[in-house]
Amino acid sequence: MKIEHFVAQSEGTWRSMRSSHSLAFQQFEEVLSEIHIKKVTPEEPEVIELLKSSAKQDCIPVSPFTMEWKAESDWESDDPSAVASGCCLLVPIPASTERGVILRSLGYAEAQEAISNYQFLSDGTFVLSTKYGQSLAEERIWFVSKHVRCRSSVIRTSEGSGVLQTSFASEVRQLTE
Amino acid sequence: MKIEHFVAQSEGTWRSMRSSHSLAFQQFEEVLSEIHIKKVTPEEPEVIELLKSSAKQDCIPVSPFTMEWKAESDWESDDPSAVASGCCLLVPIPASTERGVILRSLGYAEAQEAISNYQFLSDGTFVLSTKYGQSLAEERIWFVSKHVRCRSSVIRTSEGSGVLQTSFASEVRQLTE
Repeated sequence: MKIEHFVAQSEGTWRSMRSSHSLAFQQFEEVLSEIHIKKVTPEEPEVIELLKSSAKQDCIPVSPFTMEWKAESDWESDDPSAVASGCCLLVPIPASTERGVILRSLGYAEAQEAISNYQFLSDGTFVLSTKYGQSLAEERIWFVSKHVRCRSSVIRTSEGSGVLQTSFASEVRQLTE
Repeated sequence: MKIEHFVAQSEGTWRSMRSSHSLAFQQFEEVLSEIHIKKVTPEEPEVIELLKSSAKQDCIPVSPFTMEWKAESDWESDDPSAVASGCCLLVPIPASTERGVILRSLGYAEAQEAISNYQFLSDGTFVLSTKYGQSLAEERIWFVSKHVRCRSSVIRTSEGSGVLQTSFASEVRQLTE
């Protein structure tokens, strides 16, 4: 199962450099952060709870994991609602080797529970699409080496095809001695 | 032919927001620029010259084009060799619908003639790989709507898998009245 492999590759602590582009205002924003990705067991009460609240209790989750992040600097942000740290539970439910859905306890574009569709492109790039109330987000993650991955996102309005914001993160695995 | 379609989609004037990440030093750099992409005819002397100098004079080019760029600001650059403007001729030679090579009069990672391999991923993402003397560059371009495209790059050392620099550009088509 590709998603299992992807989660296993992603596990660990990552140092992230992230740039976001606000297209309408041509504004840049830069954030340095640390990200922890950790597998949890499918029997975890939080996993069962999230399956239930998404009416997916009859589905079989594969490689659920948590993602924790902590920003170290956000010196150019002028958005007071920017969240400096947080934690999110992600529960993949594959439909096939290439695609499926991921339940998220916290969305990426909006802070609410969300269900994302995922698929793997022909070169292994992981693409995640999420529909929120006001917006659509597409995220892509690809490994450029074992310890370096790239992550991009595009957020657009759910009505029409206006692109609001893009972002790009370069993530380097922190190796512990 | 996919490359024809891709070049046709790319033609025009783009306003680009570009961030680059220097991974070793955790440095960000931001550049606003304008990019002009324009098809040229295969009979153009520059196209014939580039085919010859690459020993590809017997190959049939498809949709050759020029890319011109001009930076409007580069306020965080501390690299005196950063080029603020330039022009590059690109000559695609498809091997199949999905892949081929592109001759470049000027490389991306190093300022010299270069031959890139290209391929299209399953969702249409265009991936370009170039081997230079000292480095390997991978660029990806994908359209998020008709008038917005994203472009990422990863530059690594040609010996070993050290990733030196990544970049990401959000490009919005400038519509002329």
